[in-house]
Amino acid sequence: MSLLEALQWRYATKKMNGQKVPQEKIDRILDATRLSPSSAGLQPYSILVVEDEALREKIMAVSNNQRQIADSSHLLIFAAWKDISIAQVNDFIKLTAQVRNVTVESLEGYKDMLLGVITRNTPEQNFQWAARQAYIAFGIAIAAAATEQVDATPMEGFNAAALDELLGLEEKGLRSVTLLPLGYRDAPNDWLQGLEKVRWPKEKMVLEVAASY
Amino acid sequence: MSLLEALQWRYATKKMNGQKVPQEKIDRILDATRLSPSSAGLQPYSILVVEDEALREKIMAVSNNQRQIADSSHLLIFAAWKDISIAQVNDFIKLTAQVRNVTVESLEGYKDMLLGVITRNTPEQNFQWAARQAYIAFGIAIAAAATEQVDATPMEGFNAAALDELLGLEEKGLRSVTLLPLGYRDAPNDWLQGLEKVRWPKEKMVLEVAASY
Repeated sequence: MSLLEALQWRYATKKMNGQKVPQEKIDRILDATRLSPSSAGLQPYSILVVEDEALREKIMAVSNNQRQIADSSHLLIFAAWKDISIAQVNDFIKLTAQVRNVTVESLEGYKDMLLGVITRNTPEQNFQWAARQAYIAFGIAIAAAATEQVDATPMEGFNAAALDELLGLEEKGLRSVTLLPLGYRDAPNDWLQGLEKVRWPKEKMVLEVAASY
Repeated sequence: MSLLEALQWRYATKKMNGQKVPQEKIDRILDATRLSPSSAGLQPYSILVVEDEALREKIMAVSNNQRQIADSSHLLIFAAWKDISIAQVNDFIKLTAQVRNVTVESLEGYKDMLLGVITRNTPEQNFQWAARQAYIAFGIAIAAAATEQVDATPMEGFNAAALDELLGLEEKGLRSVTLLPLGYRDAPNDWLQGLEKVRWPKEKMVLEVAASY
């Protein structure tokens, strides 16, 4: 199945059936997500994986009681760094040097560029920037789940402060930004299943820019 | 090629060779991108496609002179709605009714929920929310380009205000958020080509949450 067919197949599943997704599919979805690009390569976010059912019930309670969280197989939580520290940049430079087998000194210019950005920004600006990077990964996770024929429900409608509190994300230097329950559609009981997708017409969404500008 | 293999194959191409990408590939990348999910389904963004070379040169000049913009085949510009208006919500509800063959009245609750959110928010908050939705599409476009074996360079480093001015985006109700030049790598002249990808180790990026929370 091509990516285009997979994206046609997927939809924001409203009712899941509780069936477990095989671990190798979860692993491939996470591996694809980990390959997401990010600004300057920094990947300023983590992805939390919640399989435990009792914990998913608790998360549901701070997520407008959206039942897919409980009826899914695994819940992914995309959490962005709440700020970007000098130490994190230094760690990233060390990682880059190690992976590419170059010296930390040879990456000095790159490091200074990154430090310039993050120290000029407020913590909130750094977080908002990190959150946008997490959304790239979120998009790629949605695509990856679809190609694995795993249903998923992208969700913003939850109480992020309450979820951060529940999971102690603050102490981990994280703030939750989006949720992605993974599982399987309960097709006969899902009102959205089989309904036509609503997308703006191509001529409204995609604007060909004329040469005359 | 699986999505995972495609994501391994891709990288933020630093040097493109000017070769044209066939229109059917561009169309499939845009079709996949148009299928991106968004919060409440609103899709509050447009994707501008710039093929004209002279115009891409002008855009390069306000984008830190990143040569991939000129050396690409097509430049995609992701531009979020600068605010979300009541009229836009009404248009979206009309579109939904039309596509799903239901009455506008039957979508009243949905419309009120959406209007509640957008009128409570400031224009800047609505824009930031719209920008995050555009980032989901950006992630999916990156995945789609990779599966088409088309190179792409995700870019945030440009002067958004200058680009908006150049293309008259303000008058279109848009603000540019990210760029994605599409083209083909000039492998022998690209310093990044073939270098190992830098990603946080899986155990740092992906956190399995224990049941004890």
